[in-house]
Amino acid sequence: MTQTLEPGTPIDADTDRLAIDTIRFLAADMVQAASSGHPGMPMGAAPMAWTLWSRHLRHDPADPDWADRDRFVLSAGHGSALLYALLHLFGYDLPMSELKAFRQLGSRTPGHPEAGHTPGVETTTGPLGQGLAMAVGLALAERMTAARYPEITDHHTFAIVGDGCLMEGVSHEAASLAGHLGLGRLIVLWDDNAITIDGGTELSTSDDQLARFTSYGWHTLSVEDGTDVDAIDEALTAAKADRRPTFIAVRTVIGQGAPGVEGTSKAHGSPLGEETLAAAKARAGWRWPAFTVPEAVRAGCAALAAQSAERRTAWLDAFDLFTVGAPERAGAFRRARERALPGDLRGTLAAIADGRSRATRQSSQDCLVALSGLLPELVGGSADLAGSTGTATGGALVTRDDFTGSTIAFGVREFAMAAVLNGLALHGGFRPWGSTFLVFSDYLRPALRLAALMKQPVIYILTHDSVAVGEDGPTHQPVEHVESLRLIPGLQVLRPADEAETVDAWRLAIERTDGPTALILTRQSVPALDPVSAVRARTAAPDSEPGPLGPTRPDVEIVATGSEVALAVDVTGRLAAEGISVRTVSAMDRSSYRPDRSVPRVSIEAGVTSGWRGLVDLAIGVDEFGASGPGGAVLAHFGLTADAIVARITQLLDDPPDRSALREA
Amino acid sequence: MTQTLEPGTPIDADTDRLAIDTIRFLAADMVQAASSGHPGMPMGAAPMAWTLWSRHLRHDPADPDWADRDRFVLSAGHGSALLYALLHLFGYDLPMSELKAFRQLGSRTPGHPEAGHTPGVETTTGPLGQGLAMAVGLALAERMTAARYPEITDHHTFAIVGDGCLMEGVSHEAASLAGHLGLGRLIVLWDDNAITIDGGTELSTSDDQLARFTSYGWHTLSVEDGTDVDAIDEALTAAKADRRPTFIAVRTVIGQGAPGVEGTSKAHGSPLGEETLAAAKARAGWRWPAFTVPEAVRAGCAALAAQSAERRTAWLDAFDLFTVGAPERAGAFRRARERALPGDLRGTLAAIADGRSRATRQSSQDCLVALSGLLPELVGGSADLAGSTGTATGGALVTRDDFTGSTIAFGVREFAMAAVLNGLALHGGFRPWGSTFLVFSDYLRPALRLAALMKQPVIYILTHDSVAVGEDGPTHQPVEHVESLRLIPGLQVLRPADEAETVDAWRLAIERTDGPTALILTRQSVPALDPVSAVRARTAAPDSEPGPLGPTRPDVEIVATGSEVALAVDVTGRLAAEGISVRTVSAMDRSSYRPDRSVPRVSIEAGVTSGWRGLVDLAIGVDEFGASGPGGAVLAHFGLTADAIVARITQLLDDPPDRSALREA
Repeated sequence: MTQTLEPGTPIDADTDRLAIDTIRFLAADMVQAASSGHPGMPMGAAPMAWTLWSRHLRHDPADPDWADRDRFVLSAGHGSALLYALLHLFGYDLPMSELKAFRQLGSRTPGHPEAGHTPGVETTTGPLGQGLAMAVGLALAERMTAARYPEITDHHTFAIVGDGCLMEGVSHEAASLAGHLGLGRLIVLWDDNAITIDGGTELSTSDDQLARFTSYGWHTLSVEDGTDVDAIDEALTAAKADRRPTFIAVRTVIGQGAPGVEGTSKAHGSPLGEETLAAAKARAGWRWPAFTVPEAVRAGCAALAAQSAERRTAWLDAFDLFTVGAPERAGAFRRARERALPGDLRGTLAAIADGRSRATRQSSQDCLVALSGLLPELVGGSADLAGSTGTATGGALVTRDDFTGSTIAFGVREFAMAAVLNGLALHGGFRPWGSTFLVFSDYLRPALRLAALMKQPVIYILTHDSVAVGEDGPTHQPVEHVESLRLIPGLQVLRPADEAETVDAWRLAIERTDGPTALILTRQSVPALDPVSAVRARTAAPDSEPGPLGPTRPDVEIVATGSEVALAVDVTGRLAAEGISVRTVSAMDRSSYRPDRSVPRVSIEAGVTSGWRGLVDLAIGVDEFGASGPGGAVLAHFGLTADAIVARITQLLDDPPDRSALREA
Repeated sequence: MTQTLEPGTPIDADTDRLAIDTIRFLAADMVQAASSGHPGMPMGAAPMAWTLWSRHLRHDPADPDWADRDRFVLSAGHGSALLYALLHLFGYDLPMSELKAFRQLGSRTPGHPEAGHTPGVETTTGPLGQGLAMAVGLALAERMTAARYPEITDHHTFAIVGDGCLMEGVSHEAASLAGHLGLGRLIVLWDDNAITIDGGTELSTSDDQLARFTSYGWHTLSVEDGTDVDAIDEALTAAKADRRPTFIAVRTVIGQGAPGVEGTSKAHGSPLGEETLAAAKARAGWRWPAFTVPEAVRAGCAALAAQSAERRTAWLDAFDLFTVGAPERAGAFRRARERALPGDLRGTLAAIADGRSRATRQSSQDCLVALSGLLPELVGGSADLAGSTGTATGGALVTRDDFTGSTIAFGVREFAMAAVLNGLALHGGFRPWGSTFLVFSDYLRPALRLAALMKQPVIYILTHDSVAVGEDGPTHQPVEHVESLRLIPGLQVLRPADEAETVDAWRLAIERTDGPTALILTRQSVPALDPVSAVRARTAAPDSEPGPLGPTRPDVEIVATGSEVALAVDVTGRLAAEGISVRTVSAMDRSSYRPDRSVPRVSIEAGVTSGWRGLVDLAIGVDEFGASGPGGAVLAHFGLTADAIVARITQLLDDPPDRSALREA
């Protein structure tokens, strides 16, 4: 047995066995008490998890935020009881009362692990495959941190993944990227139990997983007996010694030790039942009541945790030395981890806007370049659309040989990109961004949802934001996407109208530290708006009250976002020529728009209108799929011209507000 | 050179070269004329496409809907000009005037290929990876058709995929499934040009693609010179002879022959420019004006098409024989391809509802079983949640050895599932369905969008439809999903309230032949509603006028969907006890709800409220992420109890409608 911890570690085969059974039965007890949950995975994977935690994982339960800790990701998040048992045993702030409250409202032990909710939980998992992809992000973050701060960075990322994780497409994207980048500090244990919910994996897959991961450039290993602590230990040791990411197939039995259900899908997602649980305990010679940790295990884990904590003590000393020797770098390291911003940020940004008429993706590129100069922690990349999305900043590329760069070439892998961004954010020390076309936000939506749920400040740069994309046609023209992003709780969605608003959108994105932001940007050029031509809704100037709201009691209020604000200004001018007074509102962040319900209101946005209908009397947009043709022709086809809109507004005012009917149409 | 067509085929090396150049320059001319598009892919992939079309593809341009034709999928859809050139040359209804109108509004030659829009285009492609996954669906459809109708089924599915397709996660899911099912009639050509938009593929990937596809159980081949017609032909012949799906890596040069840009990402997505195009033509010895097809090529293609068409003539004879010998089976074949339904369908469905209180996923299962008995073409499966989603119908499983079954075990592959369903629908002869949890509709959203765009009648069974899911917590509790599905143009979204509405929802889904339907179903039991307790909105009885709309002028109208209708009925009773008259509306399909704007209105739906705000004065729902706990506790936490709702409605009525303010809140 490799002893990677200090000599004297109180682990012997008896303790191993007892500890593993403790984990197994704590997990099964939790599920039983909740009458809900997944006992099978913890019972089968307990030996590998125990081996990892007892012999390899470097962490300090007293400081779950220690920067240089090893990261552990339970990608098979339904096995949350396994993770909670480990956190409890090693002394994280998760008392037995919390284990007993498994899956109860308000507990720290929810059904699936939730980052930010439970001390020691690194990532929110459950949606399969994403834990693996976030682990790739965490491992990339380690390499990028080590390249910047080698004196104080030396940790690993471990993940346990299930069969389902490996079937999901995101596993391909993430593993391919990890192999390409040679993320040698990433070690993935596959809980190879050959069971999924519907039955044996032979129902649906014949993949040779080792060959598959080899094809990605990974180091691969097998452990034939998933209860063999020494074999698992040896594999982990071999993994750490290899320069490639390592994939270890560990053959396990789901629900191991539970008579009648072990090795079958029945063990997956339901409590074992009192009788089966009692039989399992009897078979294991387990003689304690439910929710018991034998003293030997308690003491052993405490000793292990204390030893592991010494690593942190040593690290703190190293960090002190580092601070003395390189105070500026140490300050930057701390600032980035605290997500604090340098004071000159607003000034730098403000200098960008000088009234140019251009695409907001181009204005965005200037912001990104300027911010990258101020914030070394601002890192990211594109899903193979760097040039098109205005994110070809000229920043050095991250490569397998050099992780000092700030730009990651994600390849055509939107979903993994977004999950890796989550990993970078969760790791700490980085402010990650990623870019693609808005229409392909659908591909990354599951990871974006997790960013919002985990309150991580990831920035998505989503361009080509309407049917104005033109010739590429309906597959590339977003219609429902802006509105569908607005539906995700906690996601800040900003669709700036011009250069000045784009700068402001970037400021809002970067100043937000507790949640993600989607920047919705045009492909086509938009004019710089005369500041008095459109009232900007509150977000444009969050530190001040909204400016004068135009005419006090106009004939009509027009609200628009993004490229349609210029159209609204044009319409406003034409209406004014007809003697109709208009208040024109630019609502980059629709959630801050406060409609003036005393006057008729019209919205203009080149997308689906359902979210506007509660705000205005007439919602002008595109409620069908787009069409291929030059952008101007497509816009005209959908009635997004000043002529067509003036006619509709005039009709609205002529045929005065039985507004109800209008709203319903 | 293998001649798989009849002897006498007028292909010689000179014709090959001329035809390939014709395709190349037609494509480049199209892009040049449009000042928009992707010349590089067609110029590099023309030889493999020509070899396939001239020597292997069995089709009849005069009948693009011929059931037994080979299917060709251009997964790298940005190379649409390649496909349009081929369709034109082989005599599909795509005259030169359409090629000249490439990417113009209203043309049959949109920027990316669109099924149903252009004769001969099998699938809508452009969003990368999905063409490959739909090809898997088409190939599966062929095997399933051949198992049912061996006398009249014998075709192949070919796809050309690009580097981007292979980076996308859906390529993993789909290729893994194809390997598992041994889809030997599927042949994939990889346009291995080592270039993506941002530059060389070495920027972002190191995959060994042949090893990767071998790990999935595919047959793999290489063609070192992508201009070598004979080598490509030999590989295709070898592919057809193998029982496994075949992946052929064909080494190409993007933009081949275009001086200064060939082999670089500059050739990808912009016109070559007049000068470069002229230089490319000069280098090739091309002496004709733009948009010219040399007579030898025109004649050769016509002869090839005529030969290929003879296959259809022979097939028609075979089909006549089949019709005589097995009139019922022939009738069923025809009926399924026409998407016609047997007359007894409504009666069978109506017999299911008998007032049971149970989960709508359970009622749905009865519908699915009953419909499967009537409609052999109703095939589908689950992304590893058959039991949970009420789709374990007991239908025989499709396996690599026996394709007669109707149930496909998709594995934990939501995205590929939805793309394969698209392939099954596009192939014809099947009415496909797939199931997963509603929250994971995010994983398959890009393919669902394509189903809607292609107007394919795919049915999605999406269960566990709200925070009532309970213990599994926020990762498994949909909140924004119902509303976000409603945003997709052309998708029918139905959230039935009870057994009777579930039956009706299935009827609507199955009777719809020109677009997809999402059935949104509960995990938890719901009571059977007294038919008079809630007015069902129009969809519930589409052939009749809505029933009496309850009180003529009630004090309040409450509209709800799905499991919240029972809650609305409960609230209605309590309000009635307080002397408040209520009209209660069940709006399974919200788009058919017509609000009575003369009275205060309240909506109840356990999800985000933004889409309701234009319809009601008070929208009760869940505008934040869910929480882990027993379902009832979670519902109570979010105020979804009769007590809490009665209080809110009472307050609404007491503090009478400055409705504007309420709507804004």
